[in-house]
Amino acid sequence: MRTVPTVYEVARHARVSTATVSRVLSGNDRVRPEYRERVFAAVAELGYVPSGAARDLAARRAGVLGLCFPDLVGDQDTDSDAMFWYDEIIRGMERAARRRGYALLIAACHETDDVDLVTTVAGRCDGMVVLARTVPAPELERIAGRIPVTMLAGPRTSDEAARVVDHLVVANREGARELTGHLVDVHGYTDVWFVAGPDSPDSAARFDGFQAALAERGLPVAQRPHAAGDFTTAGGRRAVAQLLADGHRPRALVCANDQTALGALTALAGAGLRVPQDVAVTGFDGIQLGQHVRPALTTATQPMRQLGEKAVSMLEERLADPTLAARLVEMPVRVDVRESCGCTSEI
Amino acid sequence: MRTVPTVYEVARHARVSTATVSRVLSGNDRVRPEYRERVFAAVAELGYVPSGAARDLAARRAGVLGLCFPDLVGDQDTDSDAMFWYDEIIRGMERAARRRGYALLIAACHETDDVDLVTTVAGRCDGMVVLARTVPAPELERIAGRIPVTMLAGPRTSDEAARVVDHLVVANREGARELTGHLVDVHGYTDVWFVAGPDSPDSAARFDGFQAALAERGLPVAQRPHAAGDFTTAGGRRAVAQLLADGHRPRALVCANDQTALGALTALAGAGLRVPQDVAVTGFDGIQLGQHVRPALTTATQPMRQLGEKAVSMLEERLADPTLAARLVEMPVRVDVRESCGCTSEI
Repeated sequence: MRTVPTVYEVARHARVSTATVSRVLSGNDRVRPEYRERVFAAVAELGYVPSGAARDLAARRAGVLGLCFPDLVGDQDTDSDAMFWYDEIIRGMERAARRRGYALLIAACHETDDVDLVTTVAGRCDGMVVLARTVPAPELERIAGRIPVTMLAGPRTSDEAARVVDHLVVANREGARELTGHLVDVHGYTDVWFVAGPDSPDSAARFDGFQAALAERGLPVAQRPHAAGDFTTAGGRRAVAQLLADGHRPRALVCANDQTALGALTALAGAGLRVPQDVAVTGFDGIQLGQHVRPALTTATQPMRQLGEKAVSMLEERLADPTLAARLVEMPVRVDVRESCGCTSEI
Repeated sequence: MRTVPTVYEVARHARVSTATVSRVLSGNDRVRPEYRERVFAAVAELGYVPSGAARDLAARRAGVLGLCFPDLVGDQDTDSDAMFWYDEIIRGMERAARRRGYALLIAACHETDDVDLVTTVAGRCDGMVVLARTVPAPELERIAGRIPVTMLAGPRTSDEAARVVDHLVVANREGARELTGHLVDVHGYTDVWFVAGPDSPDSAARFDGFQAALAERGLPVAQRPHAAGDFTTAGGRRAVAQLLADGHRPRALVCANDQTALGALTALAGAGLRVPQDVAVTGFDGIQLGQHVRPALTTATQPMRQLGEKAVSMLEERLADPTLAARLVEMPVRVDVRESCGCTSEI
């Protein structure tokens, strides 16, 4: 038989009110000593475990960090649309949090309709990391007024939020600039196209780097991406299949992220085109899968572990000093040259 | 300038004690009406957000489900030792939780030294899923006395825990039995070896199915696994490399999980052996990577989304009726025949 002592049983046992039990257990010392003793005796006798919430109020520390990432694909997602980059962000954050004794509270949210989940997360953690497009700006400001918030990737959403939210980004522009330059300088491709993600600051910054690389080399610069997916594998496949169906045959595709590039590989194979012999492809992110597909993906790899570590340490610094001015930290990416650009994996 | 209204400011503004603010906000109605009104007015005026802990006490619902998974690799893990199966479990649970309005609190724990993190998780969620080897049995019983707990994979750790903890497992034995039978019946291999994981009930149940398949076909049955890794890619690579270094050349390897099989592929390639022409390999789990490596991995695929859904619904059923007898639910696996067994991906 299962026994779950409740605060009511403790109160009955101790012959005090439940409010008195709560006051005693939350460390309030304006309780008569004999009541306190009876409460502690009842707790010990019944094996009562105060709820985390009650202990939180006493300790004023949840021992939890939060992570909100965007719900890009929603309910219709299939396994092939899994967002591997989020898995790696979650893993990196969880590791970094664990090393400092925190558990990690995660929720996928969409800024238009999931404010309840955001509220749940924000109310239960000591600090939180939000990815772009997860929390509406007014809500973000409200949360950042109470606990440290670091935005990972994405833009400064508003002037107001910029004053209270730290930002941690990777060198999106530089990474795409370097990849595009590699395609031109090493492989001699001049007909290089860009396959964007959704309307997002990360995709935009990478397109910006793509444009810069072409401009620096005196090549024609497209004013808009040549095609756009949505950062998923399926989205990349559709975007590139459409481009091929329209009769285009670019020599190289700079894709806004790895999963877009994986979709591009599938679309190109479906059209009987070889990578890299007919069309070269590059990605962005450095998800594990990119090392294992054939051809292995040339990409700009984000420092996932260091991002997790840095995000947690930024939260801790702000916990220690809430008056810190908002910070913008950019971490470098590493261009990993593999096979899909035309290099062999040995280079 | 950043303004963080605290309960003290609310109390000062409302000209009441902080205890009165807490009582009003936690729904206690034994507070004089004019005090209540002053508190609510102050809260509205200052934009005060009561902490989640305070609201939890009022609502008696955290809106959070917990997930503890084992910390197999600890701090020395590298990216190549990432446990992809956990990523998929986390993703499946997060999706299932989100659909029901819960956030997910995750922590990697090791049963010998991480009781603090387990306590953090248990104290802050409405129900939790634990994977095997994460929570010591006495602690598990204590937690299960307060909130619903489902153990995912793994054994019933003790008689006591078995009475209060639901179990959700997959058909480990059947999956391995079917894979081994496939190697014998379809490919005609008789020299089939087993590469175990760590000392774990999942690995043991899969070895049991391996033995059963051979016994049913009148083939010699090994009493112990031929080699053992630790469920990581690196562990599988080491185990198979050692086996080859010892001069063994089995015709087929049934590996305890996919990452062990991925490690086997690397070790075999390193020894100049072709898969499946020289040595056939099978895995277990159905991680995404297995579809993308070459040769693609023949494996028993766990129903990740359904496991997440089922785990959450079991917690909800027990939240609704804590007197439910402990349940054991086994979900089927699907054998996915790809290339590493000797079939082509078209079969």
